[in-house]
Amino acid sequence: MSTEAVSTSLPLRAAKQTDAHPLAPLSADEIRSAVSILKSQWPANADLHFKIVTLEEPAKAEAVPYVEAEFHGYNLPNIDRKAFLNYYIRKTNKFHEAIVNLTKQSVESNVRLGPNVHAPGDGEEVMAIERVALEDAGVQAEIAKLKLPEGTQLVIDPWIYGADGVDDDERMWQTFMYMRDPENSSEADSNHYALPLTISPVVSGETMKVIRIDHLPTGKDNTIKEPQPYKHKGANEYIPEAQQLRTDVKPLHVSQPEGAGFTVTEQGTSQIIEWQKWSFRVGFNHREGMVLYDVRYDGRNLFYRLSLSDMNIPYADPRHPFHKKSAFDLGDAGAGVMANDLKLGCDCLGSIHYLSAVLADHKGEPMDMPNVVCVHEQDAGIGWKHTNYRTGRAAVVRSRELVLQSIITVSNYEYILAFIFNQAGELDYEVRATGVLSTQPIDEGIEVPWGTVVHPGVLATHHQHIFSLRVDPAIDGYHNRLVYDEALPMPRSDFNPHGTGYYTQETVVETSGGYDLDFNTNRTFKIQNVDVRNPINGKPVAYKIHAPPFQKIISDTESFNHKRAEFSDRNIYAVKYRENELFAGGKYTNQSRGGTGVRGWANRKDKIVDEDIVLFVQFGINHIPRIEDFPVMPCEIIRVAMKPVNFFDKNPAIDVPPSTQEFNKSTLLSEAHKQASVEGTVTKDGGVCCSVSTPSSKL
Amino acid sequence: MSTEAVSTSLPLRAAKQTDAHPLAPLSADEIRSAVSILKSQWPANADLHFKIVTLEEPAKAEAVPYVEAEFHGYNLPNIDRKAFLNYYIRKTNKFHEAIVNLTKQSVESNVRLGPNVHAPGDGEEVMAIERVALEDAGVQAEIAKLKLPEGTQLVIDPWIYGADGVDDDERMWQTFMYMRDPENSSEADSNHYALPLTISPVVSGETMKVIRIDHLPTGKDNTIKEPQPYKHKGANEYIPEAQQLRTDVKPLHVSQPEGAGFTVTEQGTSQIIEWQKWSFRVGFNHREGMVLYDVRYDGRNLFYRLSLSDMNIPYADPRHPFHKKSAFDLGDAGAGVMANDLKLGCDCLGSIHYLSAVLADHKGEPMDMPNVVCVHEQDAGIGWKHTNYRTGRAAVVRSRELVLQSIITVSNYEYILAFIFNQAGELDYEVRATGVLSTQPIDEGIEVPWGTVVHPGVLATHHQHIFSLRVDPAIDGYHNRLVYDEALPMPRSDFNPHGTGYYTQETVVETSGGYDLDFNTNRTFKIQNVDVRNPINGKPVAYKIHAPPFQKIISDTESFNHKRAEFSDRNIYAVKYRENELFAGGKYTNQSRGGTGVRGWANRKDKIVDEDIVLFVQFGINHIPRIEDFPVMPCEIIRVAMKPVNFFDKNPAIDVPPSTQEFNKSTLLSEAHKQASVEGTVTKDGGVCCSVSTPSSKL
Repeated sequence: MSTEAVSTSLPLRAAKQTDAHPLAPLSADEIRSAVSILKSQWPANADLHFKIVTLEEPAKAEAVPYVEAEFHGYNLPNIDRKAFLNYYIRKTNKFHEAIVNLTKQSVESNVRLGPNVHAPGDGEEVMAIERVALEDAGVQAEIAKLKLPEGTQLVIDPWIYGADGVDDDERMWQTFMYMRDPENSSEADSNHYALPLTISPVVSGETMKVIRIDHLPTGKDNTIKEPQPYKHKGANEYIPEAQQLRTDVKPLHVSQPEGAGFTVTEQGTSQIIEWQKWSFRVGFNHREGMVLYDVRYDGRNLFYRLSLSDMNIPYADPRHPFHKKSAFDLGDAGAGVMANDLKLGCDCLGSIHYLSAVLADHKGEPMDMPNVVCVHEQDAGIGWKHTNYRTGRAAVVRSRELVLQSIITVSNYEYILAFIFNQAGELDYEVRATGVLSTQPIDEGIEVPWGTVVHPGVLATHHQHIFSLRVDPAIDGYHNRLVYDEALPMPRSDFNPHGTGYYTQETVVETSGGYDLDFNTNRTFKIQNVDVRNPINGKPVAYKIHAPPFQKIISDTESFNHKRAEFSDRNIYAVKYRENELFAGGKYTNQSRGGTGVRGWANRKDKIVDEDIVLFVQFGINHIPRIEDFPVMPCEIIRVAMKPVNFFDKNPAIDVPPSTQEFNKSTLLSEAHKQASVEGTVTKDGGVCCSVSTPSSKL
Repeated sequence: MSTEAVSTSLPLRAAKQTDAHPLAPLSADEIRSAVSILKSQWPANADLHFKIVTLEEPAKAEAVPYVEAEFHGYNLPNIDRKAFLNYYIRKTNKFHEAIVNLTKQSVESNVRLGPNVHAPGDGEEVMAIERVALEDAGVQAEIAKLKLPEGTQLVIDPWIYGADGVDDDERMWQTFMYMRDPENSSEADSNHYALPLTISPVVSGETMKVIRIDHLPTGKDNTIKEPQPYKHKGANEYIPEAQQLRTDVKPLHVSQPEGAGFTVTEQGTSQIIEWQKWSFRVGFNHREGMVLYDVRYDGRNLFYRLSLSDMNIPYADPRHPFHKKSAFDLGDAGAGVMANDLKLGCDCLGSIHYLSAVLADHKGEPMDMPNVVCVHEQDAGIGWKHTNYRTGRAAVVRSRELVLQSIITVSNYEYILAFIFNQAGELDYEVRATGVLSTQPIDEGIEVPWGTVVHPGVLATHHQHIFSLRVDPAIDGYHNRLVYDEALPMPRSDFNPHGTGYYTQETVVETSGGYDLDFNTNRTFKIQNVDVRNPINGKPVAYKIHAPPFQKIISDTESFNHKRAEFSDRNIYAVKYRENELFAGGKYTNQSRGGTGVRGWANRKDKIVDEDIVLFVQFGINHIPRIEDFPVMPCEIIRVAMKPVNFFDKNPAIDVPPSTQEFNKSTLLSEAHKQASVEGTVTKDGGVCCSVSTPSSKL
């Protein structure tokens, strides 16, 4: 490992390998192989319901030497390929976890899980539950009380049952019922969320039968009313055919006539992407969606692994069954399997490269996931500028970003997830929340303090979105520490007689635990490597984390919500690396009890100074719905930024070529305001922007 | 005023007027006329040094009826045009404030100001001070001690003197001295901030003579050393000729083949801009730069006036003279007069419309300010999306923004200021800080806790950037109230047995004062009009304010810094409207004592419920320099967002046409991942995006 922070351009050598990269997702063949090997453990007629068939990543102690050898062009160590499988014996509650060694063609482990350990949902299951609920005789009887118009289409949104410790050991589904606009019943995309009903069938995940029919309270208290004859309160559609569309939006095209500036090297099921001194490997799996590995800038280590760890969305209505609404969209479903097939020109603008993936379906068959990630550049405004007022000469560059974007649909909601890189060494993770609010019926004419009426008879309850980004850093090496800076006032003294002085104080985070921001001191967390010093100022190289503040989980500390969403109560959790600690809310979140997630890992109180550390960075939104969020909400955008601090020896974007009209080809719309003709000073570096300007009499 | 929140498309009628709009900036003729009338008050040989000649805006009680009449097409009231002037008798400290009635051709007032009331700097003055300081014999003698190489170019950065109550009644300038790279002395744009010197001449603003020579401490304490023979520590240039430029940045063009979607109607010195249901008037003046007036959405009132009120940048080094560094870049200089002449393709990308302005120079002559604002659209990613997982049909629109951008250069620093509108009724104010850190010399080999060494021998001291945005709201009318929502846990009870419930509670801000955010309760401020109710849920129409948190001014409450930067200690100041209360730091900030700004207005404890209220929204950065911020810093970006809350009856962007490849014309880079051919369902509304997708087996 270099002991100097030198900027070199080390080329990334393509791994010389015929075998799959140890961090690459399973291929279709590997999925079939793993399933076949696992099935051989069971009688031939066993019907196995697969939940996940995914890569079991190698131990970091093996993987790091591999990526380092790969980078330096050394011989590559051999690492066994392994698969991790979750499966049920179909239509039972016998839930299993297995590890299959694909290299050795053997089963390393195969255990029955539980009790109180349940699998996430899957698409096939969800479709089946909808049918089961609607066809149930008891449910039909309740529906009849609604006296719906002939031909009305009913819709079921199956929800993870949640947990409250009340007869909830078995795997169940709480389903919510809606109807489509009865005046437009052939429209399959009619917005059923505008027409919620009070009938809520509960379905057993094991027997696939309705075991109970709940009824939703619609007033200000817990009163449950019999289903009432339906009164139509109008539709609220989001599809374009239902709108009076604007006719004055002018096209805006983004084009890259010389192609995009990034390269994508396909290596089986993963890709190496290189752009503006950045390099990294991209993987994609069932639960996490996009994962970035071995992120480097100019050949220098930055992050070993980056991924969304989970998200939790607890709801504010305390009444049954709403108190159980607390979704873990990765653990309960999966950001990979729910990823949209992105469409050119619809989801992504400009010059786009798509990445596809392969996952497994409930039968253990490979399932193609086309275009789940789009990769493109985008302009992000001015990157930096300075004008010397004495000469009038401006030096200005634009900021170009690289975006890797994936969009997931979790029933009603969408999340647009993106890794964003820029030329100043900054790496951001952005989440946009959009889609449709989760709705429930409410009596007309009333309001409640735990939600907003967004349509006649329709309540959208307050809820929190709490995201957890897992950051496995490797800032110039694999042993880092976490510190935080605070800006504190100097006390009045002879040295500070005017009371204006302040200073920064650094605190080392000694042990694993949960830590919070504090804007009263500008508390800023940094990941440091004290073995690598800035050559100019001697400070340890570091990356700082800018995470926006958020209201921590409101559910009280004794609640199931709080116990299960272990990451939701702190801005940052810092732990010492251990294998299989990827998911901050625990490995199995469906109807979980908590106790297997990051809070417990942090409570080990491991020493985390100059160690292999892992951070979980939380950020979120307390979503208090407004009517503007319906029928679909405009994107609510939040970002975590990671920026270099004394990692380089100057602005890393100082060498971005000047922003010039020749390069950018903007169009002048205002004829009356002609640009002064520019007699530029053309240099061998390609011309200087706008060098002629009368020395200003301005300041 | 409408009592219902209806969406109508009321056309904005161009004002039928031959006279200037009452809110339009002074024209060149008006400037000449005002100056001439004012001069007639003085002997013919009086040499007046003009500091500002600007519009004296009419009383709001006159202007509001005018803009309302203009909107509705009624007869327009007559309003006198008035000019506000600040001037000195040149080379004296006789500072004056005058109001000239241009309509009546008379002087309404003309008073001598002071003591302790000083004018901002101006460009002519700053250039003169540089010469005065360098040519002073005493300064030359100190420079000689540096034993600089022959031909070395010295540079002076004049700074506003600041205030500390120590012999600081007269108007003075604290100048900081730098040199250019002696090995490149003919390069006029050599970065002198990399080569700071210890000699700091103080210049009298009145006599324009050096009155004192300060020396800067360079160690860890107050020790002052004699100027030492110079030791070259290398240059640190930002100009492109000095860089090894990247050669792999590919062009990225933004084009609008059918033109841009906004219209600009020029009306003398102001412009009316209309875009995507937004309409507003733009002005531009010496101190505030861009000002927006009469901002409406779909004809509905939103904001009467929006502008940057001031910014304060206090520095952390407690030692003389640094303790006095506390810049008020609007009050001490002016965001209008310091605005860059923006260059097509350099500063602004895409299809650009430029706005120009006219200000006045120190002789009272009109001074053209070409291209000080650029207006353009930009794509901002996905606006909203939802996919019905049952059918696979996605509805998606892109978010288009309108940007009005101005860039100011304040000696070393740049600020990129932008108003940004989107199609979801959202209006943002964005600031990007860039340019060059203010530097001072430091002994080699040491570090100090109040700054960062960014180059050998160069210290960049910590400093805060605190901005104040003045928001004069008119949410569906001119009487509003300020409230804040908080999300609070329900206590455990029979109603909340699981401890998961929470609710929002609204608090009305009854009296003027300073108010803070609180992320522990998700405290969110909203401007409401209780006389206009949402037709669906009955809630008062409102706009909420999302301002990022920041560390309030660290200087203690007894300090001059704290007393002067009256806005810097609270997230929001709310006051009752009064004339001439535009500038949160006071009307005259140069060497001010405080007491004339927003803190005092707030302390009146006016009732501000359903009144004509004004808000000052603060936001900022505690800039702890890192070496990546030198020689020029990558933009640090912060935004204030104002978003509708129950103002509309649904998502106001629901009628944006679908995002389609036909419209957007993206380019596919990944041949291997061909897009499925789309048999779209073409509707009379123009086609549906990507309607064919296999019903997903995904959730």
